[in-house]
Amino acid sequence: MSGDTGMKKSSNVVWHQGLVTREMRERQNGHKSVILWFTGLSGSGKSTLAHAVEKRLHEEFNCATYVFDGDNVRHGLCSDLGFTEEDRRENIRRIGEMVKLFLDAGVISLTAFISPFRQDRQRVRDLVGEGDFVEIYCKASLEVCEQRDVKGLYKRARAGEIPNFTGISSPYEEPENPELVVETGSLPLEACVDQVIDYLQNHGDLPRLRGHEQQRAVAAG
Amino acid sequence: MSGDTGMKKSSNVVWHQGLVTREMRERQNGHKSVILWFTGLSGSGKSTLAHAVEKRLHEEFNCATYVFDGDNVRHGLCSDLGFTEEDRRENIRRIGEMVKLFLDAGVISLTAFISPFRQDRQRVRDLVGEGDFVEIYCKASLEVCEQRDVKGLYKRARAGEIPNFTGISSPYEEPENPELVVETGSLPLEACVDQVIDYLQNHGDLPRLRGHEQQRAVAAG
Repeated sequence: MSGDTGMKKSSNVVWHQGLVTREMRERQNGHKSVILWFTGLSGSGKSTLAHAVEKRLHEEFNCATYVFDGDNVRHGLCSDLGFTEEDRRENIRRIGEMVKLFLDAGVISLTAFISPFRQDRQRVRDLVGEGDFVEIYCKASLEVCEQRDVKGLYKRARAGEIPNFTGISSPYEEPENPELVVETGSLPLEACVDQVIDYLQNHGDLPRLRGHEQQRAVAAG
Repeated sequence: MSGDTGMKKSSNVVWHQGLVTREMRERQNGHKSVILWFTGLSGSGKSTLAHAVEKRLHEEFNCATYVFDGDNVRHGLCSDLGFTEEDRRENIRRIGEMVKLFLDAGVISLTAFISPFRQDRQRVRDLVGEGDFVEIYCKASLEVCEQRDVKGLYKRARAGEIPNFTGISSPYEEPENPELVVETGSLPLEACVDQVIDYLQNHGDLPRLRGHEQQRAVAAG
């Protein structure tokens, strides 16, 4: 008796497991899944860049995408974690494990976390596999980030109100061999977005543009 | 100066944040996102049913789907957790927070965890919101599950080798008002799949079938 035709009561026949694979999802979506791991100081523009890239991928390339940042992860999956070195490690570990599932689900994941430690980023890279992990260094000097101070965090960190603040009282370890360095400290947003999109196109991760989408892309370019 | 046209060095202008919303993703996918939460004893057929439903949703309805079960969660995101009551709670909490993001990403999530405690399932329901949570009770008696004992776990649990084993040394709290009860202990797999698909169709979660897809569905039915 075949497992997928049925099951008699009390029999121990195992039901047939019909799997949908990553390849099947990628074919359905018309593009590869990949993890775009944005890293950089607080205020360097990771989250803004990630969302802008996502919007372009969604609107012009019709991609399945998702952005992970402090807003939707720190208050949810990692709400039990603080900012000690150990907790930051666990934070990045869980995010790595989660985006691995999004990768398997065929989604282009864009993560926007400071992720200051080289070893943690390497761990995620090892976890998800080399070709699937695109490390994007959002390069902006501490001076620029501190001058922007969008959320007023640097001021509070300088006043000693925030312990373990990256760049002030906790180190940021620059990526040594990131797939991409984006000068978010000096370039306009659209130029930064172009750089990420170009990378993905050059690596065959995006669908070929068709018809009006192509026209829109040309017009936008 | 508008945020999305660029940014001067050292200025503290906030970049424009272009958001892709859940509604935009659902429109792109052509179906609503939802969480199908399968619950039931070990051996009741949760995982098999979830995978079979996923396959149908992928092949016949072209849906974005993903199945979560012990294989891809217990060894990853929750690898630091054991099976005490507290750890099971945290396990379900993390899964709940993760599938909430998949929901937001437009994906139909199918979870296959024993999730024995009513309170934990209620917590996930509260977390993701009423209309987005479909609790599916995979109903099979302990006798049937123990007789199947596909993985030999019941035998080991009876021998005292596995502590806190649901149904043997730890309680399973039956759902009181699940959206769906599927008699996985006695019905053939395809009948169980039909029941879940019917539910989704009746609640408007699935795209209307078109052309050859419809023919295939009719032929399959």
